[in-house]
Amino acid sequence: MNYRMITYIMGQILKVVGLCMLLPVLVGAIYGEKHIILSFGIPFVITIAIALAFTLKKPKNNAVFSMEGFVSVAASWIAMSAIGALPFVISGEIPNYFDALFETVSGFTTTGATILGNVEAMSKSCLFWRAFTHWLGGMGVLMFVLAIMSSNDARTMHMMRAECAGPNVGRLVSKSSFSARILYGIYIALTLSETVMLMLGGVPLYDAVIHACSSAGTGGFSIWNDSIAHYNSAYVEMVIAVFIILFGVNFNLYYYLIIKKFSLAFKNEEVRTYFSIIILATGIITLTVMKQYNSALDALRHTFFMVASTITSAGFSTTDTGEWPVFAQTLLLLLMFIGSCAGSTGGGMKVSRIMIIIKTGIKELRYIVSPRAVATVKMDGKPVEKDVVRGASNYFILFMTLMAISVLLISHDKFSIEESLSAVITCMNNIGFGVGRFSPSGNLGGLDSFSKVVLCFDMLLGRLEIYPLILLFAARKN
Amino acid sequence: MNYRMITYIMGQILKVVGLCMLLPVLVGAIYGEKHIILSFGIPFVITIAIALAFTLKKPKNNAVFSMEGFVSVAASWIAMSAIGALPFVISGEIPNYFDALFETVSGFTTTGATILGNVEAMSKSCLFWRAFTHWLGGMGVLMFVLAIMSSNDARTMHMMRAECAGPNVGRLVSKSSFSARILYGIYIALTLSETVMLMLGGVPLYDAVIHACSSAGTGGFSIWNDSIAHYNSAYVEMVIAVFIILFGVNFNLYYYLIIKKFSLAFKNEEVRTYFSIIILATGIITLTVMKQYNSALDALRHTFFMVASTITSAGFSTTDTGEWPVFAQTLLLLLMFIGSCAGSTGGGMKVSRIMIIIKTGIKELRYIVSPRAVATVKMDGKPVEKDVVRGASNYFILFMTLMAISVLLISHDKFSIEESLSAVITCMNNIGFGVGRFSPSGNLGGLDSFSKVVLCFDMLLGRLEIYPLILLFAARKN
Repeated sequence: MNYRMITYIMGQILKVVGLCMLLPVLVGAIYGEKHIILSFGIPFVITIAIALAFTLKKPKNNAVFSMEGFVSVAASWIAMSAIGALPFVISGEIPNYFDALFETVSGFTTTGATILGNVEAMSKSCLFWRAFTHWLGGMGVLMFVLAIMSSNDARTMHMMRAECAGPNVGRLVSKSSFSARILYGIYIALTLSETVMLMLGGVPLYDAVIHACSSAGTGGFSIWNDSIAHYNSAYVEMVIAVFIILFGVNFNLYYYLIIKKFSLAFKNEEVRTYFSIIILATGIITLTVMKQYNSALDALRHTFFMVASTITSAGFSTTDTGEWPVFAQTLLLLLMFIGSCAGSTGGGMKVSRIMIIIKTGIKELRYIVSPRAVATVKMDGKPVEKDVVRGASNYFILFMTLMAISVLLISHDKFSIEESLSAVITCMNNIGFGVGRFSPSGNLGGLDSFSKVVLCFDMLLGRLEIYPLILLFAARKN
Repeated sequence: MNYRMITYIMGQILKVVGLCMLLPVLVGAIYGEKHIILSFGIPFVITIAIALAFTLKKPKNNAVFSMEGFVSVAASWIAMSAIGALPFVISGEIPNYFDALFETVSGFTTTGATILGNVEAMSKSCLFWRAFTHWLGGMGVLMFVLAIMSSNDARTMHMMRAECAGPNVGRLVSKSSFSARILYGIYIALTLSETVMLMLGGVPLYDAVIHACSSAGTGGFSIWNDSIAHYNSAYVEMVIAVFIILFGVNFNLYYYLIIKKFSLAFKNEEVRTYFSIIILATGIITLTVMKQYNSALDALRHTFFMVASTITSAGFSTTDTGEWPVFAQTLLLLLMFIGSCAGSTGGGMKVSRIMIIIKTGIKELRYIVSPRAVATVKMDGKPVEKDVVRGASNYFILFMTLMAISVLLISHDKFSIEESLSAVITCMNNIGFGVGRFSPSGNLGGLDSFSKVVLCFDMLLGRLEIYPLILLFAARKN
């Protein structure tokens, strides 16, 4: 393995993260939070120092294969989480380092689960940093590095594959740093649009930026204890719901729209299924929760928001789903696992992966009846490569296995099996709220430090889609 | 599809089930329960009449392929459950038909989950029938038919495959009705041995027969409300624990022992893993529950019994695991999914299937790092066929998907998500007790009729390993 190249990539990533720490300093300056400067200044200096040490000399051997791609991404995400947690600790706003780490990992992985009981007590700078980790983690920090790097090598592909979500990112990604720039361009444009739309609804600039960043990463951190319900505005809710749904769409689709390949965009099977699931789930749940709201429209409004927030893994809330009928809660639980589209900022297993898995299951049934019939799994009318099919099945199995191991690891804590399971599900799918005790009205505080570390790994496993992290720890042997 | 041959096979199976109904009549005669004669007499006449109608004329076209095998097994299991429930209703001991159906399906599928609050109120004849359904369902009724049929065709293979558990029954099963006879021979010998062993411990004949039948099928129905704890005898507990573990071993192993191929028997990777898991789980859990018992030996005794009862899916109990630490309960939950060996009477996903899945996962990790490396999954030192590997992965996925659908279907009932999940897990893995509310101290009564039917399907899905049942309903189209 090319260790020198791995640290070089890590250095590039840490440089970006370090520079981004200047943004909350700016926020602090604007809102007169002088005491905050050192809280971000010290980590800034540390991060940049490490980054410079790692990148001072460009490695002679710049070969990057799958392994280097996976390992550098996994190591970078752990390093940037460890460093990103420092401002919270130094400022004293989250005094316990494990709590701060949990909050930062939850930020970068766009989970949005919080250990804080009262977020409103935090400074504007820290709340900004918290939401900004969502934005940075959503599209990926490495992607950002690739977008600003001028090189256009085949090796970038190996790195992008490690950070990109979902089974079939092949087509666009192969254009490497060029496509990274396009993806970030779309991402920034969408974030700005949402900020403007929120401000048009009377939301102050600061609030609008925070919630736009949080939506963009489909993260879910808010600056209010009662999340989006705080604004009590159907307009604000609809803007956020629509944007998180848009951020949950495969970004390739926007690329097709830009290059005017409309047929490719609108015929995309995954995106159509994603929208169908949202419509169907909203319809069914609205019918079951109708009684709990003043009007059918009110029920529809809350249901649509919560369905969007759940399937995209944003984890914002406008109502406490813990009060919903168990049937509706079970549907939400399924949406958590399905997640959004591949190549989006959303979490979960990804719609296309679930589709491939279901299609494979049907194929298997046919095979059992007549073993000689050759059936292929198709997406968008084209046969899916065998590797992708096998990969989807194995991802599902690995996901479930790691889920079981995680539940076992945190079962020593004071929670019931159901609560442990709920916490693991919300973290591995990068949602931010669970069912039962951890429904939107609750928070993940109260777990012990070991459990928090386990859940940090779960969030990273979910965001980086398992392989990078496992390979990081398996790599030592090679 | 050869419908005529399917009804013919169904008729043969119903004949066996009908004749078996004479056994509880015998029990009734011995214990002076005269009122019970009609309760079994009427269903006996109905069953035999249907069976004769189906088997009067042997079909000219006796071709049986996979599809016919799967469909006839699925249809037979539904028919025999529907008929097997009648004695409970006619005798008035389980007045509600859905309750009686649940109890019978739970019996034949060797689940052992009960809707009864007080089993001790039942007649000896009904309790015998209840336990005997375990015995009959454990090794399979079709297997019994094949064992007594003289024909030795290739077509019997297709049928055995549908009723046999686990991914790799290939080797022995290919010898068709001959091997069916050997398997039933071993099964009967083990059951008789357990009966004798229990009687040596002072257990009355009737009790011994009931618990031996229940153990043989790894079912779990007892005649006491507090299950095996009733005897408060370490000897009885150890006999039952050892025998259920033996019934959870791949029966091929006993065959190898009989034909003196000792190396094949002792080198079997699945069986060795199965025993390792039992020893490991017993050790770990004993350490965590030690404080709750009078002595370490007491803790070991209860832990060993409950581990054996859980991994084999027997579902007997000597202690309320609901009182155990969450960590220990989570371990038990994992054991439920792992289950016992392929080709045994136990439930769960089967050790060999889990092993293949884990080995495939490791292979996939290697593949991601270096796609050119060709790695094969091996069991017992030999490469596993690709079909078997793919089949194991797909089985896992189908299992989880059907579990999710089932939880959704019963979520309208009055239970929480956690309770619904627990009920589905215990039924699909054919265990008999769950965690939380449905831990050994509880029962599944209180569900509505629709939920009971869903859980009946889940038990059948678990016992017949999914495919027969799905194909039965998919078959109409062809």
